[in-house]
Amino acid sequence: MASASSDLTGYLNAADAAALDVELMTEPGFSLEQLMELAGLSCAEAIYQVVEERRQQSETPRILLVCGPGNNGGDGLVAARHLVMFGYQCDVVYPKQSKKQHFINLVQQCKDVGITVSAEMPESTGKGNSPYDAIVDAIFGFSFQAGTIREPFATILTQIKEEADANKNLSTISVDVPSGWNVDEGDVAKTGFMPDVLISLTTPKHCSRSFPGRHFVGGRFLPPKLAEKYGVQMPPYPGVSQVMEIKSASVDAKM
Amino acid sequence: MASASSDLTGYLNAADAAALDVELMTEPGFSLEQLMELAGLSCAEAIYQVVEERRQQSETPRILLVCGPGNNGGDGLVAARHLVMFGYQCDVVYPKQSKKQHFINLVQQCKDVGITVSAEMPESTGKGNSPYDAIVDAIFGFSFQAGTIREPFATILTQIKEEADANKNLSTISVDVPSGWNVDEGDVAKTGFMPDVLISLTTPKHCSRSFPGRHFVGGRFLPPKLAEKYGVQMPPYPGVSQVMEIKSASVDAKM
Repeated sequence: MASASSDLTGYLNAADAAALDVELMTEPGFSLEQLMELAGLSCAEAIYQVVEERRQQSETPRILLVCGPGNNGGDGLVAARHLVMFGYQCDVVYPKQSKKQHFINLVQQCKDVGITVSAEMPESTGKGNSPYDAIVDAIFGFSFQAGTIREPFATILTQIKEEADANKNLSTISVDVPSGWNVDEGDVAKTGFMPDVLISLTTPKHCSRSFPGRHFVGGRFLPPKLAEKYGVQMPPYPGVSQVMEIKSASVDAKM
Repeated sequence: MASASSDLTGYLNAADAAALDVELMTEPGFSLEQLMELAGLSCAEAIYQVVEERRQQSETPRILLVCGPGNNGGDGLVAARHLVMFGYQCDVVYPKQSKKQHFINLVQQCKDVGITVSAEMPESTGKGNSPYDAIVDAIFGFSFQAGTIREPFATILTQIKEEADANKNLSTISVDVPSGWNVDEGDVAKTGFMPDVLISLTTPKHCSRSFPGRHFVGGRFLPPKLAEKYGVQMPPYPGVSQVMEIKSASVDAKM
């Protein structure tokens, strides 16, 4: 824990992020179902805030959420369902579905509110004419081991990047860590994927130090004892909000 | 389901409320952990709204939450934790603690954010000088079988009532059903317990038809298929809110 206690800025490295996650879910403590529900809800609130600022009044916003094989993907599934509750239309791409019961439940919950869950990206994506207001990258989170990105996610990330380059009305939003980035070092693999928006969960990871876009923190559930142990702080969330925008690269000053 | 399909006003009777709850949690579907988290969060949002309107600027609001032996009590435990996240000070009275793991977890989660969980009411309660801004009744919910209220809850309800009668600055807030009321018929047992505020979860129960106080609906998770089957509608929740105030005794007009 030496690295945590010497880092009081609110950023977590990959090892401490994993250790904190384990401690949060050690019995008696939080269940995965609880934390994923709150994390996904905070993502939905951030996505809503970003999209509402840019939306055309009369149209129902459409969001494409790309979900990876682990917990980051689960956060995306939860966010999709809440976005539908907020009045949005959502499509989910979930190529490598977890066989764990909770993830099977999350997929069913999406389908029950009218969300299409597909294994493949919509054909149009990458050509700059996709119908979406935002594409959410919920592919890899803080446990991603940097290196070669396995298919189909390498191709999907290229499609998202090409779509964003060609379509300036589209917002790209990453959950917790921009997929493909090294959690500690950032985009050292030069994937070139740079989302417009990052939603850090619980607290920002080291890679977000260099993130230039809009930056939210969500996941309003950290007990003081764990915050102190890991040398992080929850941001001063306003009112009942589950999410808060912070100024990128100045977490120290604001938190 | 005849009673449900013939009742399109958004009110549920006790039998249908129980059946809807079972259907919501039939695999693959929601887990208790998920629904309780969202229900409790919506209660915390409603309590926050009520208390913020009346609070003295400089003081941290104090809330006493009285939790019963079943799921209504679990909603109260979740609400207490979220209220602390919102900056409030909470005390919990939980005389008959469930031995189920999730409830043991919920108690620990309360303690981890500094909430005192006691088996007995604070001594002062009932004399009109308790330090609380609100007392939350999370004792009995829609599965309460009307009849004699067992101890210690009969005494506790009397204490809450006496405290409210003597202390006009106190708000009393019931979760889902005012405790002691018949879920279908209302206060037919003449307990005389009349909270200032009612937070209906998912949709109002029949007893709330005659409720004259402030009335919120929370629990923003009902899939359209189940809403249709039970003849109920979610209220038009604003923005990302998990709760919405409706006009008492006019659910038909507003929903």
